[in-house]
Amino acid sequence: MHIGMIGLGKMGGNMRERLRRAGHTVTGYDRNPDVSDAASVQEMVAALPTPRIVWVMVPAGAITDSVVGELGGLLEAGDLIIDGGNSRFTDDARHAAELGAKGVRFVDCGVSGGVWGLENGYGLMAGGSAEDIAELMPIFDSLRPEGERADSFVHVGEVGAGHYAKMVHNGIEYGLMQAYAEGYELLEHKDIIKDVPGTFKAWQKGTVVRSWLLDLLVNALDEDPELAQVAPWVEDSGEGRWTVEEAIAEAVPMPVITSALFARFASRDDASPQLKMVSALRHQFGGHAVKKA
Amino acid sequence: MHIGMIGLGKMGGNMRERLRRAGHTVTGYDRNPDVSDAASVQEMVAALPTPRIVWVMVPAGAITDSVVGELGGLLEAGDLIIDGGNSRFTDDARHAAELGAKGVRFVDCGVSGGVWGLENGYGLMAGGSAEDIAELMPIFDSLRPEGERADSFVHVGEVGAGHYAKMVHNGIEYGLMQAYAEGYELLEHKDIIKDVPGTFKAWQKGTVVRSWLLDLLVNALDEDPELAQVAPWVEDSGEGRWTVEEAIAEAVPMPVITSALFARFASRDDASPQLKMVSALRHQFGGHAVKKA
Amino acid sequence: MHIGMIGLGKMGGNMRERLRRAGHTVTGYDRNPDVSDAASVQEMVAALPTPRIVWVMVPAGAITDSVVGELGGLLEAGDLIIDGGNSRFTDDARHAAELGAKGVRFVDCGVSGGVWGLENGYGLMAGGSAEDIAELMPIFDSLRPEGERADSFVHVGEVGAGHYAKMVHNGIEYGLMQAYAEGYELLEHKDIIKDVPGTFKAWQKGTVVRSWLLDLLVNALDEDPELAQVAPWVEDSGEGRWTVEEAIAEAVPMPVITSALFARFASRDDASPQLKMVSALRHQFGGHAVKKA
Amino acid sequence: MHIGMIGLGKMGGNMRERLRRAGHTVTGYDRNPDVSDAASVQEMVAALPTPRIVWVMVPAGAITDSVVGELGGLLEAGDLIIDGGNSRFTDDARHAAELGAKGVRFVDCGVSGGVWGLENGYGLMAGGSAEDIAELMPIFDSLRPEGERADSFVHVGEVGAGHYAKMVHNGIEYGLMQAYAEGYELLEHKDIIKDVPGTFKAWQKGTVVRSWLLDLLVNALDEDPELAQVAPWVEDSGEGRWTVEEAIAEAVPMPVITSALFARFASRDDASPQLKMVSALRHQFGGHAVKKA
Repeated sequence: MHIGMIGLGKMGGNMRERLRRAGHTVTGYDRNPDVSDAASVQEMVAALPTPRIVWVMVPAGAITDSVVGELGGLLEAGDLIIDGGNSRFTDDARHAAELGAKGVRFVDCGVSGGVWGLENGYGLMAGGSAEDIAELMPIFDSLRPEGERADSFVHVGEVGAGHYAKMVHNGIEYGLMQAYAEGYELLEHKDIIKDVPGTFKAWQKGTVVRSWLLDLLVNALDEDPELAQVAPWVEDSGEGRWTVEEAIAEAVPMPVITSALFARFASRDDASPQLKMVSALRHQFGGHAVKKA
Repeated sequence: MHIGMIGLGKMGGNMRERLRRAGHTVTGYDRNPDVSDAASVQEMVAALPTPRIVWVMVPAGAITDSVVGELGGLLEAGDLIIDGGNSRFTDDARHAAELGAKGVRFVDCGVSGGVWGLENGYGLMAGGSAEDIAELMPIFDSLRPEGERADSFVHVGEVGAGHYAKMVHNGIEYGLMQAYAEGYELLEHKDIIKDVPGTFKAWQKGTVVRSWLLDLLVNALDEDPELAQVAPWVEDSGEGRWTVEEAIAEAVPMPVITSALFARFASRDDASPQLKMVSALRHQFGGHAVKKA
Repeated sequence: MHIGMIGLGKMGGNMRERLRRAGHTVTGYDRNPDVSDAASVQEMVAALPTPRIVWVMVPAGAITDSVVGELGGLLEAGDLIIDGGNSRFTDDARHAAELGAKGVRFVDCGVSGGVWGLENGYGLMAGGSAEDIAELMPIFDSLRPEGERADSFVHVGEVGAGHYAKMVHNGIEYGLMQAYAEGYELLEHKDIIKDVPGTFKAWQKGTVVRSWLLDLLVNALDEDPELAQVAPWVEDSGEGRWTVEEAIAEAVPMPVITSALFARFASRDDASPQLKMVSALRHQFGGHAVKKA
Repeated sequence: MHIGMIGLGKMGGNMRERLRRAGHTVTGYDRNPDVSDAASVQEMVAALPTPRIVWVMVPAGAITDSVVGELGGLLEAGDLIIDGGNSRFTDDARHAAELGAKGVRFVDCGVSGGVWGLENGYGLMAGGSAEDIAELMPIFDSLRPEGERADSFVHVGEVGAGHYAKMVHNGIEYGLMQAYAEGYELLEHKDIIKDVPGTFKAWQKGTVVRSWLLDLLVNALDEDPELAQVAPWVEDSGEGRWTVEEAIAEAVPMPVITSALFARFASRDDASPQLKMVSALRHQFGGHAVKKA
């Protein structure tokens, strides 16, 4: 197939390459002319056969809104946009309605795999109509790992369902990472443990906790056995927050994923008014010494 | 009554004074000669009428063990020791057994009220035999606030039950403090809130959240409206940990009290290997930037 | 003063009575004609002196929207609506804008105190302009407990700030209740504790954990010492959820308040797919027996 | 090598078989004569060449204590016991001291892999002296999966360190399982998700959350797509509790692993006094309806 792709960063750039290796033609556009195949979105659109298919792979929120809006003005009835970024699922219905008003089709697709996807393939979760998904299967099949389709691709439901599944995937990811990390800290603290990196390494085969994230953890300790180069400061990027918002909206208790999110908030909360207050209260009732700021 | 008291710090010193104001005679001993009534434990014991009653008010653990051991060697059958410190309830059975072997009686008593107890009176939770507790009621009645006995004194059960109740009391206290503190931080963050200290102040009368800890929180903000003098660093002193250990032993889910304890641990965990690991993992799979140590 | 009041349930009905006892005139409207002073909102509005002041005390969300909308159509420039219900703070800006378009003023006021407010007075947190708040002070002063104004009333900020403060107040309330409840369950479990109701009763005076909620807990155990009449099933009503949503929006870790909310969710989650899944997983890897549904 | 093995259940029985397939001789003993190679422990010991090596694979706690005690009475100086069960690490020092008094050597070894270990091999974490571990390597190498030794075996430290690492491994396992399970419940709740089993299945290749536990989760949903046969009731078996006890002892915040443990406690806490209390309190202050027991 011949498709367009907007956004050629760590994800989009690798996806363009993986699609090309599989024999597809990709006309990519990126604000960075060094990696872009077209000088403008307009030029990219002009290069595509009809019905045009454009994969959008840009940061969620305002940038995706802007790109989808611009594309909507350039595409024609029967064309199709895939949002493969990490958009909130509630954005999808809005985009689909805006585009649908002029006959442009919309599919959302959660993409997992990170920087390793070029070689390993990506796990894909798609939302949209059965017809649109069917039409896109050659693209999806080339992006996902080889082997059984069902092991790396799912049509989750109508528009929005793909990003919802990706949101939950990332929420789970937060919990998994924090679980390993808590175990890591306890092993680091305990005097009788003489080989922390070796312990994680030995969990890679045969154990119940073996996973791809564990393999990455072993990589990280291979590169920096005491994580001396890394600050205890962790960003979060949307999906974790949205997962907890959905936990609230659906009244589902999700203590593990929420704890993982809050640990990240706390990592960036150096001033921590709450901890100052607890310290101040201990002083008030018990006369306990306060550590001075 | 005429009793001995060992440990004349913030708690014991005030309790001696409150008992004296109520007409009791107290012979106190403290390592600090400036506040001690006797030159030695032996001299204090010698000053007491028989059967001797000695209130021990020293730090839990090794120091209480040592004082109870020394007293055990000096007292005689029929004498009585009250441990009013924050001992772990499991220490009580051991102390009672050691003392019981030579006929010395033992009562444990949780004491709450902090530095305000001299004026306000103390809440008391006692463990021991009905006979021993009955004998000590004049002391307990003088230490607790005026008014209904049941509002500030309880005979919780046999030896150990008093400290168990105090342990749970302190566990609850951890949760209450953290609840107020979380609300405080959210109000501090929110731009539309123009008067955080005034908001807490206005909760003191009529609201569902009014409490003595809230009054202390208002005091703290009166003294330092932005807690500028206080570091976000909080100690913990045993009872919170023991409460969670009991949650585990009894298979009772206690997420709030445990979260409050962990928030204190995190406040002192500047290196936080776990957060370094989460950051390192994000870099591994997603190529996300890591904040350098 | 002479004001209107819409909504004469447990809260509004008591507030009308408290205002009347203080010498104010209140023309109340409620859908229930047995408690209503007017046959319709229109009739109530017609009875008020200008500029008209109407206190709205109805359930948050759709009903408040509807009442504010209807009132907006009946009032005139210079009139003033106070929303005293538990509206989400984000509703306030919308209401103020709608009403402001025709010159009707808007104030939001969080009200705490529950069914005890008639006798005790209510804690009040108001949002709005300084002029509007000043004009309403006779009403506020009559609703709040006697004594220092600052102990039970605060002007928190512009429109929305009052409900924001009330939201945080209720979030804290969730945490406080869960903290006591966890301690209660641990005491109930422990065999050496012989008098659980007596223990809570004895915490009412002198202790660090004394509070109004503790007094209510003692009332509850007085009425039903083993809570035999109560199912372990707890509703939640908005403010707890909004507090956690704000925790996420502001990146403030709030583990205690969130744990309290999730405990309520779990209380109503009998099917608990998550616990089924953990059980199924244990069976998968370890051959552990599964309890059959 | 020729070793003895006590305990031939799901784990020990498979391990005997795997060792035999690798060419070792194993004389096994189990209370169940149908699977036992020897009529008694004594007979098993008599069958072994000196220095005798006996692998103990029985439930942790009293049973392990009893078996180690019995073996200690039968073995001679220079013999060696490996405790491969899930003993608490603190038991190891005790066992090593008891056995060491008569010259019997002791090694602890955490074993992960569950019922799949016969075919896949087991992940192994050993604690003991370098000499003892070196002597046992032919056994360890046969039990672990083929391939690089460091990927499935680690010498963690002195006696106790192996079980400590296994304890942390299981604590992490609790967190991982709960993370997937929370995501599962949210997907189950959400109306727009049309294929929950398919979503998990599609995460098996290429995604960040791929893992062996995820594969097992897919197996579980293959067998019972709605987990209709499984009750929401989850056991716990020691290591999770010990991990949280160590979190407390080491002052390491471990909210995720602890939340996972508490979710299991709550699953078995049908009476839930804490939730009854929260419901009763809501009624007390707000007159909110209580669901009757």
